[in-house]
Amino acid sequence: MIEKSNIPELLSKFQDHWNPRIVGELNGQHVKLAKFKGEFVWHKHDNEDELFLVINGSFTMQFRDGDVQLSEGDFLIVPRGVEHCPVAEQEVSVMLFEPASTLNTGDAGGELTRTDLVRL
Amino acid sequence: MIEKSNIPELLSKFQDHWNPRIVGELNGQHVKLAKFKGEFVWHKHDNEDELFLVINGSFTMQFRDGDVQLSEGDFLIVPRGVEHCPVAEQEVSVMLFEPASTLNTGDAGGELTRTDLVRL
Repeated sequence: MIEKSNIPELLSKFQDHWNPRIVGELNGQHVKLAKFKGEFVWHKHDNEDELFLVINGSFTMQFRDGDVQLSEGDFLIVPRGVEHCPVAEQEVSVMLFEPASTLNTGDAGGELTRTDLVRL
Repeated sequence: MIEKSNIPELLSKFQDHWNPRIVGELNGQHVKLAKFKGEFVWHKHDNEDELFLVINGSFTMQFRDGDVQLSEGDFLIVPRGVEHCPVAEQEVSVMLFEPASTLNTGDAGGELTRTDLVRL
């Protein structure tokens, strides 16, 4: 039997920031949920486009040519190769849709890199 | 400059049922918004998995082995090859993630088939 998932229930299962959980997989893509707070690192993904959908709260996606403010119900697609850096003054919950190969810090690496993501 | 999209604003731009709009494209996948009301047709997609995320309202995804009720904040992934038929007593707004190749009625065809989807 195919089971549904509930976003608020999934979000209640973790509290840490910048550590996406995998909550679904289809067509070689991952559906992820993450909580952001503070500033991430500037990075790009050479081969993956990324979708960010705000579930609760708000954040700013910084690009080299300007910022985009995102609130609940907004989504943004960051094309491959485009440098970006999310920053959230307050905690924000975000759904991500991206290829299964996507590494959170892209080409930047560093201490915020998360591999072996937990599946909820 | 990369622009965001707002789901409620996009949903306000159309009123018809069973006629998905394309609201984003990434990695060969489409992000769509649709409004459902009434019963669709039983069908399957031989090569595409489909994600349904409820934005407003509720609906039932019928499978051959049982029903799944979905409300706001719920999502469901229908794997390729699995027969399904959505039904909504009241209007429901749904976000879809699926390959760009996906036809709404899959293998069933018929009068509810929509090609050349409008991009919002």
